[in-house]
Amino acid sequence: MPQQRRAQATRRAIVVAAAEEFDGAGYDGTPLSAILRRSGVTKGAFYFHFASKEALAITLVRLQGQRWPRLRQRWLRRGIDPLSIAVGMVDEASRLIENDVVIRAGTRLARDRIGRDLAEHRALTEWEQVLTDLLQRSADRGLLRSGVNPDEVARVIHAAMVGVRTVGAERSHGAGIAARAAEVWRVTLQGIATAEWLRSNRFLSTR
Amino acid sequence: MPQQRRAQATRRAIVVAAAEEFDGAGYDGTPLSAILRRSGVTKGAFYFHFASKEALAITLVRLQGQRWPRLRQRWLRRGIDPLSIAVGMVDEASRLIENDVVIRAGTRLARDRIGRDLAEHRALTEWEQVLTDLLQRSADRGLLRSGVNPDEVARVIHAAMVGVRTVGAERSHGAGIAARAAEVWRVTLQGIATAEWLRSNRFLSTR
Repeated sequence: MPQQRRAQATRRAIVVAAAEEFDGAGYDGTPLSAILRRSGVTKGAFYFHFASKEALAITLVRLQGQRWPRLRQRWLRRGIDPLSIAVGMVDEASRLIENDVVIRAGTRLARDRIGRDLAEHRALTEWEQVLTDLLQRSADRGLLRSGVNPDEVARVIHAAMVGVRTVGAERSHGAGIAARAAEVWRVTLQGIATAEWLRSNRFLSTR
Repeated sequence: MPQQRRAQATRRAIVVAAAEEFDGAGYDGTPLSAILRRSGVTKGAFYFHFASKEALAITLVRLQGQRWPRLRQRWLRRGIDPLSIAVGMVDEASRLIENDVVIRAGTRLARDRIGRDLAEHRALTEWEQVLTDLLQRSADRGLLRSGVNPDEVARVIHAAMVGVRTVGAERSHGAGIAARAAEVWRVTLQGIATAEWLRSNRFLSTR
């Protein structure tokens, strides 16, 4: 089905071109003409795939929102301790945001409340909940120092990751987001994880 | 000068009404008519004070941007150690964002890049720089544990505070921002400050 394959390639070209434009200039700062120019697609071909610029932006919000549950599920199924799962899934998510312009643009559009009624807008709350569960399980397993409040730690890690994304977006298109996310773990884990956990997870200090 | 006082009161009513609208619905989500309705000001009176909705939004961005240098200078002049200065100034800033709708709306509009060429848009970078200076001075004074990288800590604290603001905005108009900011310090200080500093700054654990 070469025709269907060509249609898929065109659709993908539109999505990537739109992501590159939205990532840099935001929804309001991106006219449809800029997306057409960058993708090399005619207006007619565009409207074959998307009803409007808004429909396209909503597709991007959906694409990022659908990515996180799968990513988290994969980590949750791994046979490692809950604190390592938390570190690993956040690390992978931050690399994805740094390296995949479609995901990165989708998170920006979500932050700017495009398609604000979509289920994918629950991503922020879901991340906080998953981190809270993992930190609580870490406390139950004795991986956290005594006196550490796992709910509080989960909220702080979550806020720091959201902030890393926001500050990163102000500067340069995604560069450094994964390194900044690793810093968040390095700084916080020193105060919250037991000495034993830190000793057996030395990789953190060398990243 | 009762007439001048009346003009000032009208201007203030417009600014506060606009802040309440922008804080909840953002720039694009707030028509001028909503601001007029909330402030009880006529269109004619509005245009006596502001050229446009955009000019009014830019005023709010300016108001928040001008507040931070003054707030920081006041803390920098206090005769306390640099780590306590960092904690104190961030705490005061987060309370201001929680309690003052004009400042809160201004930070939201700045985040959404209203008036993106204004000097006040450097606020994010300035906060990170001030925190970096204070953490470096804290390291020089021996207030940080050995092996702690003050630049990294400053970036993490800064990102977490930006994230607290962003997550808070998604939920409810500013409520809880100061408490969340205090959590950031509680979680990070345990791992970065010396035991001596923590002992003499017990207030953190009871806030």
